[in-house]
Amino acid sequence: MRVLVPFDAQEPNTRLDPVLDAEERRAFAGAMLADVLTALRETDCDLDIQVLATAPADVDADVSVDDRPLTPAVNAVLGATETPVAVVMADLPLTTPAAVERLFSHPADVVLAPGLGGGTNALLARHPEFRVDYHGVSYRDHREAAAAVGATVRTVDSFRLALDVDDPTDLAEVLLHSNGDAAAWLREAGFSVSAGSGRMTAERSG
Amino acid sequence: MRVLVPFDAQEPNTRLDPVLDAEERRAFAGAMLADVLTALRETDCDLDIQVLATAPADVDADVSVDDRPLTPAVNAVLGATETPVAVVMADLPLTTPAAVERLFSHPADVVLAPGLGGGTNALLARHPEFRVDYHGVSYRDHREAAAAVGATVRTVDSFRLALDVDDPTDLAEVLLHSNGDAAAWLREAGFSVSAGSGRMTAERSG
Repeated sequence: MRVLVPFDAQEPNTRLDPVLDAEERRAFAGAMLADVLTALRETDCDLDIQVLATAPADVDADVSVDDRPLTPAVNAVLGATETPVAVVMADLPLTTPAAVERLFSHPADVVLAPGLGGGTNALLARHPEFRVDYHGVSYRDHREAAAAVGATVRTVDSFRLALDVDDPTDLAEVLLHSNGDAAAWLREAGFSVSAGSGRMTAERSG
Repeated sequence: MRVLVPFDAQEPNTRLDPVLDAEERRAFAGAMLADVLTALRETDCDLDIQVLATAPADVDADVSVDDRPLTPAVNAVLGATETPVAVVMADLPLTTPAAVERLFSHPADVVLAPGLGGGTNALLARHPEFRVDYHGVSYRDHREAAAAVGATVRTVDSFRLALDVDDPTDLAEVLLHSNGDAAAWLREAGFSVSAGSGRMTAERSG
């Protein structure tokens, strides 16, 4: 199965700007991508993994560069590739082999893993006419798009796939639930979990 | 199996204060509790469900009142009840029968469903010495507490169990991913999903 991993090689994770500078965000994004690639490679599935990058990137995987926005770049592959095609975002450092295997094994034409905040963090398209639109509340839109082409839809209930690292509050989740490259990078950069009265946060020392 | 559903019948969901007044928060909390009870009753499991409330509550279920904080109230039941005992929080309106069945069927002495922000949204205790401590980053603490009594631990990877409704940003998740009582209450109160440039939010009209 073909698996695309879209990756912003230029200005990744801009909403982490309050806690990480541009160079740090690029390094952290690379670590998160490495975690996703590791999880995919540790599945029992026969996968053809391709990083779909916005610019040339030094990544330990096949890289194809497309400088268009995410939606047309993914749809170009969907239109040119025999299904099934999976799309797994690069900012999912909690991803495990078990979580993506659940995505890949669901018996439906379109399988969606919703992200926190209404996005679509991973999907599997087995229907040749399904196309993506990542703008807005894409989880809802992808359900409608699948129905519009007569495709059956299923959703994977996974916290690990739901947690895309988007803003600083997400960093604590990485520290708590992962021992991968991204978590190691954060620890090395001085971050640790801080318990408050509400949800935990990640605090940086020094 | 005994299932406890702790419920704050007095001042629930105080962090929703910016968008709901005290009376609304109580009504919304009741709707979320109803969704959790419905999901539990629709499982294929033989469950003895008990709402563990901080004060007398008009709830369609067996209610036991304990005005102590959450941790001693739950531990009193764990100490007096033959295991297994499950504890499922009342503010999980995305809960489905399938999600709790995954919790109940995991083969370990202690099964944990982490919440967003480091909490423990649901757990199953099959070990007679395991006790809870909901203060702080309880997911981490519960893993350590289980290990300390020689209990095996497993984690359920569920977005639906991870999403406890804690602050206003969570309301959009309820609207997007549920058709239960809590989602209906929000729609009736004028809330709808709003797509912005980042994660969606719930906006209130009128």
